[in-house]
Amino acid sequence: MALASKIRRTQDATHRDNWRAALSEFISTLIFVFAASGSTIAVKNLTDDGPTALVTVAVANAFAFFVAVSVSTNVSGGHVNPAVSFAAFICGNLTWLRCIFFWIAQILGSVIACLLLKFTSGGQRIPVFELSSDMKVENALVLEMVMTFGLVYAVYATTVDPRSRRNGLGAIAPLVIGLVVGANNLVGSPFDGASMNPALSFGPALVGWSWENHWVYWVGPLVGGGIAGFLYELVFVSYDRQVPQRLP
Amino acid sequence: MALASKIRRTQDATHRDNWRAALSEFISTLIFVFAASGSTIAVKNLTDDGPTALVTVAVANAFAFFVAVSVSTNVSGGHVNPAVSFAAFICGNLTWLRCIFFWIAQILGSVIACLLLKFTSGGQRIPVFELSSDMKVENALVLEMVMTFGLVYAVYATTVDPRSRRNGLGAIAPLVIGLVVGANNLVGSPFDGASMNPALSFGPALVGWSWENHWVYWVGPLVGGGIAGFLYELVFVSYDRQVPQRLP
Amino acid sequence: MALASKIRRTQDATHRDNWRAALSEFISTLIFVFAASGSTIAVKNLTDDGPTALVTVAVANAFAFFVAVSVSTNVSGGHVNPAVSFAAFICGNLTWLRCIFFWIAQILGSVIACLLLKFTSGGQRIPVFELSSDMKVENALVLEMVMTFGLVYAVYATTVDPRSRRNGLGAIAPLVIGLVVGANNLVGSPFDGASMNPALSFGPALVGWSWENHWVYWVGPLVGGGIAGFLYELVFVSYDRQVPQRLP
Amino acid sequence: MALASKIRRTQDATHRDNWRAALSEFISTLIFVFAASGSTIAVKNLTDDGPTALVTVAVANAFAFFVAVSVSTNVSGGHVNPAVSFAAFICGNLTWLRCIFFWIAQILGSVIACLLLKFTSGGQRIPVFELSSDMKVENALVLEMVMTFGLVYAVYATTVDPRSRRNGLGAIAPLVIGLVVGANNLVGSPFDGASMNPALSFGPALVGWSWENHWVYWVGPLVGGGIAGFLYELVFVSYDRQVPQRLP
Repeated sequence: MALASKIRRTQDATHRDNWRAALSEFISTLIFVFAASGSTIAVKNLTDDGPTALVTVAVANAFAFFVAVSVSTNVSGGHVNPAVSFAAFICGNLTWLRCIFFWIAQILGSVIACLLLKFTSGGQRIPVFELSSDMKVENALVLEMVMTFGLVYAVYATTVDPRSRRNGLGAIAPLVIGLVVGANNLVGSPFDGASMNPALSFGPALVGWSWENHWVYWVGPLVGGGIAGFLYELVFVSYDRQVPQRLP
Repeated sequence: MALASKIRRTQDATHRDNWRAALSEFISTLIFVFAASGSTIAVKNLTDDGPTALVTVAVANAFAFFVAVSVSTNVSGGHVNPAVSFAAFICGNLTWLRCIFFWIAQILGSVIACLLLKFTSGGQRIPVFELSSDMKVENALVLEMVMTFGLVYAVYATTVDPRSRRNGLGAIAPLVIGLVVGANNLVGSPFDGASMNPALSFGPALVGWSWENHWVYWVGPLVGGGIAGFLYELVFVSYDRQVPQRLP
Repeated sequence: MALASKIRRTQDATHRDNWRAALSEFISTLIFVFAASGSTIAVKNLTDDGPTALVTVAVANAFAFFVAVSVSTNVSGGHVNPAVSFAAFICGNLTWLRCIFFWIAQILGSVIACLLLKFTSGGQRIPVFELSSDMKVENALVLEMVMTFGLVYAVYATTVDPRSRRNGLGAIAPLVIGLVVGANNLVGSPFDGASMNPALSFGPALVGWSWENHWVYWVGPLVGGGIAGFLYELVFVSYDRQVPQRLP
Repeated sequence: MALASKIRRTQDATHRDNWRAALSEFISTLIFVFAASGSTIAVKNLTDDGPTALVTVAVANAFAFFVAVSVSTNVSGGHVNPAVSFAAFICGNLTWLRCIFFWIAQILGSVIACLLLKFTSGGQRIPVFELSSDMKVENALVLEMVMTFGLVYAVYATTVDPRSRRNGLGAIAPLVIGLVVGANNLVGSPFDGASMNPALSFGPALVGWSWENHWVYWVGPLVGGGIAGFLYELVFVSYDRQVPQRLP
């Protein structure tokens, strides 16, 4: 917030642009959650042996998040995650109004995706994010923080850092962002489901009405993501007096 | 159709170009269906445990569709799917003549791929797309609609949207399009085979002569894809009065 | 050959350049065959259930071929496959001298890779390409032809086609080429090992001294690849009177 | 060293830049080791059948190394591996001071990642790199050398070679580097864990206090990587009298 107040808010989005960007976030989050949650249902319908389910769901998350970020990059900047929007807000790259629009759109996209999954799977239960039996809540909280730190650090390094636009790294930014989600999934899935994304865990929680430890999937990502954005902005972007780039 | 009539038809393809583009679509669809259908045969020849078959076939679909779109991008625009061509037609990005050329080429490519698979596998049966036992036809219809919506939305966001040509997103467009097919496969495969592509389901149906619920694999993709194209064109492309880009 | 004779041989490589390019092909093929053959040994050392081995080896082939093509693109044009060099020769994109240099380098790279694998695995047998028990030799021949057609068609569409240099497709050419190998592996592996590359099958055959049906893995790829190159050059490149681009 | 002394040391990094680049290496190595080591823990918590664990860990390594190289490319050049920094030092692309900064940062990143893994997994043992029962130490040494040769060769071909900046190959450099790690993992994992990276093996060795054959995971990568860098610089970069590019 301290940093944010020093940054000029140029390019303030008009209300019409906000609506359009929010619609883009809504559709992207819908596409992402449909595949990410849907793949867990698909795996459960087959013989469920552990490691294959792990790699299947991780690949679905990686591919789908890559796609979701790509298809909303032009219009909204490709957040598809309340933790990314929150980090962009506290670093001054997003107005509070646009952040609220995005949160609502992302949450709505997740809920609609879960309702569509419920219908198209013939009424099956949507799997909820939960801690494995031997995990304590503080372990899961730090796990979500570390994984989301990596995700938002990747977002900043490839899309906000002005060098990425000049050296071609920006062209593969959505791939970096998608695959960090996949890699972290392969670590965290057996422990707490590896959400890194409050919207991803909110839809199943609402449709399946199961809220145990749900706050972990908000506090962990928001704190971990916020630290990553703030650190990257402070150490790697701001030092050479360049005006920080605004996430669209 | 209303929108389409307002758009100037520049760059009207000559007949010779139509033939060349159709040949490109034919070969691309052949390459894609050979790998996509072939991988299901390959998996059935080995011990068939569920989730591994799921991820194997999804990876084959993702890789092969990425390749097929890439190799026809220069010549035909990389449709490789009657639902994509249909969406491009109703949005005014493709003439009706070229759309018919493409449909015929895509269907022929699929049929030839299945015949080649039958020969090279030593006469094995080509697996047909069908609903799993507990799926109702309306569930499968909506499933195909939602998945193809995501696919065609990705096509429009990365290839038709003029911003994608300027910001480097166009360079990874075929990868986005290939991986959305892979991600959706990981959701829909156990339920209805996850076609999203009438050509992909037509070849096996003809060669295996099995037409039960086959219409679902046409109506679902055409409707879902058409909505995606129309929505993207209307909300995200047309608003700033830019002349919509024509898919080659 | 008819076409080739009409093409001016500009940029004729000097002998020193030939040696350097051949060294690049040698190292690339070594890297590729080490991973492609090595992964089959690795899988055999673990519990060998069918479909998981299938996807493991296909991913190793796709990743390693992508890498091998990428790292030799600058120096030799990234063939890493006698079938690609042969197609480039008959289409006039490669001199006969350079083609011979490349073949020798590719074969040597494969043999050295297999010898290194034998040592580093503690003397294990290198798996040889062979037909599954119910495959006839004509099935395998057509299978190798179809799969290599797809591979060389992808090489021409993404690297020889001059449009790919202008529209950014060239940047992901190695990925397209690597993933078509992976996709075809998921089809052909259970039937004949899915070589598509005479160098890949020669090394294990020599080190393991097993030559049954070995000619299939030369004739199939050379014929299929040659047809693909000739067709692409004739229909999609030459028509607009552009001087065909020379593979470096 | 002989070569290095002939190269002008332009762009000598200031101390402040060294600190910033080292922080970038620290965070990148942390992200990489967290996913690479973490995925082996995750797999062990599920039914551990061999080949699925192999492909799971290889995908985690490939995705995470791709991400780690991408997010540090702008600031430090994306080494994330003491063997890469060592090769850059002996080829004159990195000052000795910066090399030491990077080594310390990479090792610290690995140790912190392992401590975070120990906490977030609820105190589980971090798997240590070790030779399989039938491997002799000389086999593992050559295996690490060959695999790291491929990795560092890929780094030089895609980032140091000046042609890669001109022809667009540089844009996918992190992907090439990530996937060569994945491909080699699919070969070497069952034999010696396939480290190719002294930092990756040091963290688990320290936290788990197990040093048997640990020197293999330093000598193999440093020698193999050094040969690759020296060879590439000498044969493929220096010949045309271009001033070698300096890794940032």
